[in-house]
Amino acid sequence: MRAWQFEGSGKPIALNEVPEPTPGPGEVVIDVKASGLCHSDLMYMEIGEGTMPFLPMTQGHENAGVISAIGEGVEGWKVGDVVGVCSSGVRPPLGMFTPGGFADKLVADARDLARVPEGLDLSLAALATDAGMTSYHAMIKVGHATTGMKVGVIGYGGLGQIGTRAAVLAGAEVHVAETKESVWDLAREAGVADVVRDASEWAGQGFDLVVDYAGFDTTQKAVDAVKRGTGTVVQVGLGLPTFTIQSSSILGKTIVGSLGGTVQDIEEVFGLLLDREIEPAYTDIAFEEIGAGLERLRRNEVAGRLVARFGD
Amino acid sequence: MRAWQFEGSGKPIALNEVPEPTPGPGEVVIDVKASGLCHSDLMYMEIGEGTMPFLPMTQGHENAGVISAIGEGVEGWKVGDVVGVCSSGVRPPLGMFTPGGFADKLVADARDLARVPEGLDLSLAALATDAGMTSYHAMIKVGHATTGMKVGVIGYGGLGQIGTRAAVLAGAEVHVAETKESVWDLAREAGVADVVRDASEWAGQGFDLVVDYAGFDTTQKAVDAVKRGTGTVVQVGLGLPTFTIQSSSILGKTIVGSLGGTVQDIEEVFGLLLDREIEPAYTDIAFEEIGAGLERLRRNEVAGRLVARFGD
Repeated sequence: MRAWQFEGSGKPIALNEVPEPTPGPGEVVIDVKASGLCHSDLMYMEIGEGTMPFLPMTQGHENAGVISAIGEGVEGWKVGDVVGVCSSGVRPPLGMFTPGGFADKLVADARDLARVPEGLDLSLAALATDAGMTSYHAMIKVGHATTGMKVGVIGYGGLGQIGTRAAVLAGAEVHVAETKESVWDLAREAGVADVVRDASEWAGQGFDLVVDYAGFDTTQKAVDAVKRGTGTVVQVGLGLPTFTIQSSSILGKTIVGSLGGTVQDIEEVFGLLLDREIEPAYTDIAFEEIGAGLERLRRNEVAGRLVARFGD
Repeated sequence: MRAWQFEGSGKPIALNEVPEPTPGPGEVVIDVKASGLCHSDLMYMEIGEGTMPFLPMTQGHENAGVISAIGEGVEGWKVGDVVGVCSSGVRPPLGMFTPGGFADKLVADARDLARVPEGLDLSLAALATDAGMTSYHAMIKVGHATTGMKVGVIGYGGLGQIGTRAAVLAGAEVHVAETKESVWDLAREAGVADVVRDASEWAGQGFDLVVDYAGFDTTQKAVDAVKRGTGTVVQVGLGLPTFTIQSSSILGKTIVGSLGGTVQDIEEVFGLLLDREIEPAYTDIAFEEIGAGLERLRRNEVAGRLVARFGD
């Protein structure tokens, strides 16, 4: 079968022919139908040689498809079931520690499967397993955004757009900070209270919660925006390698780093996508375009998500 | 009456004669019997001219004494009751925003009073209202130290010693990081599992909780010591004006800044002090020695707490 593989630092991702996988105990094989391209793929290609357990490594950690084989001891799933694979589940991240979904087939732990509801486009299902799960988990499960809360969202990119809608749907008053004016109207259409260029404009406004999907020198601004006593900053974006905080500014406030999410988060996002409550922007590309698509991502030429569609 | 007052930046604290206070509605007058000297007093003397609402300001925020007058509408308290005053209560900090306890009498909001149990030494009662409350609140109410948890304490000074005992009494396995070897034996006697010189030695050990009573470039070490998923760092000490964190190291971890505490915390600490479960080191000095005592604190010549005793 075909597989786009990382072969080593500085080398372009390569399209190789590899053996088809078989499922071990507790595993399933999925015929991949949709696999999202993510900035994390580029990060993996930078640090991968030091951390991947073997090379070459098939990339692709944001996957949806159809079960084509079932391993010993797997219960609750059958061949033909349409599934997404949790990118932060019991198995270490696909595409980084085990072969991912830039391939015709992948092997997943059955505990990491999320059931795709009938009628949901598989490109949306794929991006729900990482971009959707991560942004939703940070806002709803870690930040506990809910009715009556005053919530800030830093960064209205792929994750921020989903997190913003999740917060609006949860009944929060949502404020967005985004440097790119070109997406301000999109944010307004999503139901936010207002949009500012820089989160520093929120200083002292006593927000209950700020979710920082950027991480470009934004953590301190988020801390300054939340109220003393119960204010919480959820850090998701890692735009810069470090952040610095005024020590006294943290008193009575919390910074929590949100990491991934769960199968349940993915299935909740599936529901919101199916109901068109959240409509993330994405562009389908062909399997053969994955290598070029990653280069477009690297050059920051992509608005919304790129999703490779194949196998139909 | 006598009062040690801050008169302006760069000036030594001055012993002045001032009018006796009377209680307003909801207030009581306390004849001060014990008032602790604290590094925060020195901090107030550095930043006070910019933040105090008026000068001169009577300092002293860690107070215990006997109620000598009751204002209109105060219920549950009577003249003769022995009380401590919460230093982070409904009223802004005494000694910083309203006159404190380096004086024969002080005025307090009745809601900020903690009842001192019979038999508790008033020097201990005084230090329970700030050093005790702050360290206990951080460890027990914010950090939720309890049986079976693996807990790190950074800094075995005045606050760290109380926090450590609170965690040991709560049933946690407690590890202490302290650069001063002279207090290692004290820590071991307090029931800790081990003592290290530097919290960096804890990296990767998967602690549930680290309470950082130091804040001297220690936050990152605390983050590295706690487990991903549920690990929490409680920041109390503000040794340096800023701290810097590796962005990716915060994922799945929480940093929360603990600020002050409550009357209930103080009364719980009173109980532990009365039962000799916690025995903080302190030295009594005379009222007249408060000015010189603050200078000793500034020169770092003090081991344990200095408490001014007077009015008996």
